Amino acid sequence: MIGDPLPSDKLEGQLLSKRLALPIFASDALSSVAYAPQELLMILLVGGLAFLSFAPWVAAAVVLLLVVVMLSYRQLVKAYPSGGGDYEVAHRNLGEKAGLIVASALLVDYVLTVAVSVASGVDNIISALPFLNPWRVELAIGFVVLLMAVNLRGVRESSKAFAIPTYVFIASVALMIVVGLARVALGDAPVAESAQFGVQAENIGQAAVILLLLRAFSSGCSALTGVEAVSNGVPAFRTPKVRNAQATLVAMGSIAIFLFAGLTAVALIANVHYAEDACHLIGFADCATTPQRSLMAQVAAAVFGNNSVLFFIIQAATAAVLLLAANTAFNGFPLLGSVLAKDSYAPKALLTRGDRLVFSNGMIILAAAASLILLVYQANLTQLIQLYIIGVFVSFTLGQTGMVKHWLRMLREGCTDRSAVIRGLVINAVGAVFTATVLIVVTITKFTHGAWLVFAIMPVLWFLMLGVNRYYRDVTKEVEVDPTTTFGASGDHAIVLVGKMQKPVLKALDYAIAARHDSIEAVHMAVDDEQTAQLESDWRSMNIDVPLNIIESPYRDVADPLCSYIAKHRAEHGSEVVTVYTPIYIVGHWWETFLHNHKARRIRKKLMLVHGVTVALVPWLLDSSEVLYGRRSRPLPGQERRGEPVRPVKRAQHQAESVHRRSR
Amino acid sequence: MIGDPLPSDKLEGQLLSKRLALPIFASDALSSVAYAPQELLMILLVGGLAFLSFAPWVAAAVVLLLVVVMLSYRQLVKAYPSGGGDYEVAHRNLGEKAGLIVASALLVDYVLTVAVSVASGVDNIISALPFLNPWRVELAIGFVVLLMAVNLRGVRESSKAFAIPTYVFIASVALMIVVGLARVALGDAPVAESAQFGVQAENIGQAAVILLLLRAFSSGCSALTGVEAVSNGVPAFRTPKVRNAQATLVAMGSIAIFLFAGLTAVALIANVHYAEDACHLIGFADCATTPQRSLMAQVAAAVFGNNSVLFFIIQAATAAVLLLAANTAFNGFPLLGSVLAKDSYAPKALLTRGDRLVFSNGMIILAAAASLILLVYQANLTQLIQLYIIGVFVSFTLGQTGMVKHWLRMLREGCTDRSAVIRGLVINAVGAVFTATVLIVVTITKFTHGAWLVFAIMPVLWFLMLGVNRYYRDVTKEVEVDPTTTFGASGDHAIVLVGKMQKPVLKALDYAIAARHDSIEAVHMAVDDEQTAQLESDWRSMNIDVPLNIIESPYRDVADPLCSYIAKHRAEHGSEVVTVYTPIYIVGHWWETFLHNHKARRIRKKLMLVHGVTVALVPWLLDSSEVLYGRRSRPLPGQERRGEPVRPVKRAQHQAESVHRRSR
Repeated sequence: MIGDPLPSDKLEGQLLSKRLALPIFASDALSSVAYAPQELLMILLVGGLAFLSFAPWVAAAVVLLLVVVMLSYRQLVKAYPSGGGDYEVAHRNLGEKAGLIVASALLVDYVLTVAVSVASGVDNIISALPFLNPWRVELAIGFVVLLMAVNLRGVRESSKAFAIPTYVFIASVALMIVVGLARVALGDAPVAESAQFGVQAENIGQAAVILLLLRAFSSGCSALTGVEAVSNGVPAFRTPKVRNAQATLVAMGSIAIFLFAGLTAVALIANVHYAEDACHLIGFADCATTPQRSLMAQVAAAVFGNNSVLFFIIQAATAAVLLLAANTAFNGFPLLGSVLAKDSYAPKALLTRGDRLVFSNGMIILAAAASLILLVYQANLTQLIQLYIIGVFVSFTLGQTGMVKHWLRMLREGCTDRSAVIRGLVINAVGAVFTATVLIVVTITKFTHGAWLVFAIMPVLWFLMLGVNRYYRDVTKEVEVDPTTTFGASGDHAIVLVGKMQKPVLKALDYAIAARHDSIEAVHMAVDDEQTAQLESDWRSMNIDVPLNIIESPYRDVADPLCSYIAKHRAEHGSEVVTVYTPIYIVGHWWETFLHNHKARRIRKKLMLVHGVTVALVPWLLDSSEVLYGRRSRPLPGQERRGEPVRPVKRAQHQAESVHRRSR
Repeated sequence: MIGDPLPSDKLEGQLLSKRLALPIFASDALSSVAYAPQELLMILLVGGLAFLSFAPWVAAAVVLLLVVVMLSYRQLVKAYPSGGGDYEVAHRNLGEKAGLIVASALLVDYVLTVAVSVASGVDNIISALPFLNPWRVELAIGFVVLLMAVNLRGVRESSKAFAIPTYVFIASVALMIVVGLARVALGDAPVAESAQFGVQAENIGQAAVILLLLRAFSSGCSALTGVEAVSNGVPAFRTPKVRNAQATLVAMGSIAIFLFAGLTAVALIANVHYAEDACHLIGFADCATTPQRSLMAQVAAAVFGNNSVLFFIIQAATAAVLLLAANTAFNGFPLLGSVLAKDSYAPKALLTRGDRLVFSNGMIILAAAASLILLVYQANLTQLIQLYIIGVFVSFTLGQTGMVKHWLRMLREGCTDRSAVIRGLVINAVGAVFTATVLIVVTITKFTHGAWLVFAIMPVLWFLMLGVNRYYRDVTKEVEVDPTTTFGASGDHAIVLVGKMQKPVLKALDYAIAARHDSIEAVHMAVDDEQTAQLESDWRSMNIDVPLNIIESPYRDVADPLCSYIAKHRAEHGSEVVTVYTPIYIVGHWWETFLHNHKARRIRKKLMLVHGVTVALVPWLLDSSEVLYGRRSRPLPGQERRGEPVRPVKRAQHQAESVHRRSR
């Protein structure tokens, strides 16, 4: 009655335990700790060393925001456990257009996640191995290409190899914070290499002080990127899915808060001075040629000693976790594509998960866009951060606003657990207000620093997606079954296209004969006299019982004379269906496609425009096509973070019924 | 008996009169006059002003070579009037591998023709309008893109607009030479703007003098490029084809000799001093920022007065004829591709002349390669010339050598007109010796100056073409009819793939029913429960007389369960042919292809791997497909210079016969 329970069991086995889910979903959120404190302190330092005293307050504001956003998403995960995330929430509650704004923000976001994470990763590698500095951009683009290649090959994210760097990162940075603070307690506070440098401050007026603090806060908010990842992956968790996802979210948020606050604190204690322009540091001699080391590297060097083993472990783990974060975008981008395709906002082809080709296209587009941005901005982390958080907060704000509407509707419709709904409403309302405020702040402070680009690209994507949707809607209407359209072909004629007398042609002929059409003829398009004569003699000598007709194609164009021949035939024989048999070569290697089937494809294209024609492809497998059988399927990128679709039990019943219904 | 004479007449009308053929085929050869004298004198000047006294002798050697090559090609045109040129001659007489060397040389040549002609054209434009100098590379690449765009749209080369620039060029440069020489006779010799400049000479030893003279000669030989063009276009001439082609060749050669010799003479008289490095000119102040004006511009300014109307006419005509020369490559490249495809050395797709898409690909490749070279060499004419003539002389030498073998074979086989054969043999033998010598000289003098690149690329192309040929040979062998392969499918089952209940599906169903297969079923792949239920109810309510079977596709993959369903069916029913009907959308705009048919295409690909399956495509024309009917055909690039294929009269008879043989 319930059907074979095995598939369900198997599915459960493929789902993620919390232990594995944390590193998979957290790399994006945790890796932002690698750049957020640095960018926060850097902006403050524009105003001079005195402004560093504001740092704890600004960092506290960021932490507060992190808590609010984390709690907000805890609610979102519970209300929408299907994995649609902000896009689904905005779409359902605020309507299509708001949903598409979130979608376009997320698409831009994925590209920037790759660019920012890789740029920061390379920055940390260079901080450990300074001799690599001349190849900063090349390294960054190299990593993007590497990530693309790995993902194109297919990758099983849930393997333990993926979990290790995240745990090493958490453990080593936590150790660094603890040791750093312990040394303060023991009176041996760590001192950063840049502590000695003075800073050439800009002269800042009263109003500008506020603006600078807001700018620093905006940059610090880059710590929030990636917090939403869990909400897109609830179906991938083991049951109880929502509870496990929520627990993972809280664990991730708490770790992020600890690392962010701790790192900022130790950096302030160690007097790390990181300037937007290295030459504004007084006392930094080779500012034009030598880059500043990342805040992470300076803290690690101050706490554990420069070039100590632990220093290198910190830098390696930081770089690794940043590259993992970039990797998540290679999973998220196609997943979002498939969700959009399901709602008809992107080509349907993206919906078919098995379609490696289309997944590949998405990854190639992502890698190309990220590489272009890295090239244009010369892998400069500070400039990239300017673009980054706009998109993040657009989707945060719309997602939270959608949740507010969701709870309000629940209240209106009368729900069972009123207090839980009100709690959710309050949390998400606070979240919406906070994130909207931050969005305004971020927009004001970042717009002229490069964020206008994001505002230019998002509408383009938005219109494209809307256009695709409207197109599909029109087509669906066009092909809708209506009572005025009548079908009723009668009669059945077969034409076998014959070029040279070769096996594929004989096979097509054989199939055409087997289908026992009312009438059958072989047609040869005469282009080359010699070839035609050869065919005629072959035809006779093989005693083929099908009449061979030769059609002139005076201008070497084969398709048009054939089409008019068929049209003439149809004119004589009424609404007959004409089945045109053409052999088609099946090849094993991609490059072989350049060498086959072009002429046939062109003829086919024109034939399809002729009324009453159906084209029958008779495949001929070349020896090389055996390669196709040998191809083993690899895990699709993002399979783990999304979870397999769980089929309702009802289907098992269906299957039995369908077997029963089979004809003959 | 002879058939309708109209088509033949029409063909004659499309063929080229000598008056139109000259500008079409001569632009490449004549345009080289724009750079050959300049490069010749420039190399001599490396040795100092004294070396200019060698100039008449070096120029005379080039003229002698031009005469020899012209006479050699006169023979080639007569012996091989089919338009295959050097490639055909080398292939037939020296074997496949020599033919492929010529082919790879020609492919490289076409790219360099574009690069050199455009670079020289831009140089002459800048000589007239010096303020354009900062945009030299941008202008050059812009022109390449423009030429590509014009040719992609399709262009009728025989229009008079194409003839005008060539005739204006010939007339104005001839006038310039005559006026220049007349002023000498009248005692008012023209004086070039650079006559006053001294030249910083290199210190040159005894042996180096010879080498320098040879280098100057090599550069002067760039005057010979394009002479072979007529030999590739004999079929495009009006009858008597060979006589007309020969006459055009001689006229072209004579004009080229007159212009080359005359321009060199006037330049020497006017004391044009053109240095490889402008800063080697003593007295040229702004050598670092201001470019030297082209020799053509300096002579025109000296003869007619700077910035006079005639000066601008000369520069405009020179630039125009150079761009026309570049345009010829956009015709020649795809034509050579089709010849190679005919001999199975390139993808067969290139053979189909109607295939605009593939022609387009060839043009895009050509434009991309030329742009890349212009970018790398910064549109520097002198450096590009170093690469250019290697390929030209490789094909000259092998073509002439092939002709020698051709005449020798004629002698051996015993021919009617012995004296004509011996005359041809002598002419081509002299041509072969001359061009081979020049090839050696060019290789020695140019190799280290950049020509090694050509020697690196040619073998790659050579191996690619040979590989394609061997591949096609293997496939032909594989599909050859042999007595051991037996066909004999029996039985006939039809499957109609049904997704949603929409018109395209109903049409496919209608066609499948009309074909009256032995058995028929509709198959739906269940992915979405709701959709499946909807279909089932639609099916019932429409009372369709075909059983609908539903197949589970648990992992959203539709193709694999379908394939195994069919395989099972075939296992039960023996060697039945299974025809799978799928609707296919026909769309009007290129971008619509991204939005349709992907899933169906993927299913089709897998179905073709199943034994005994033929896929019947039932086209559904979307409204937008009407665009396809409206597309008028444009003249294909190169149509004029190749000539339409002339069909033998025999075919008309054939047609009558074929109509007679038609069944029913």
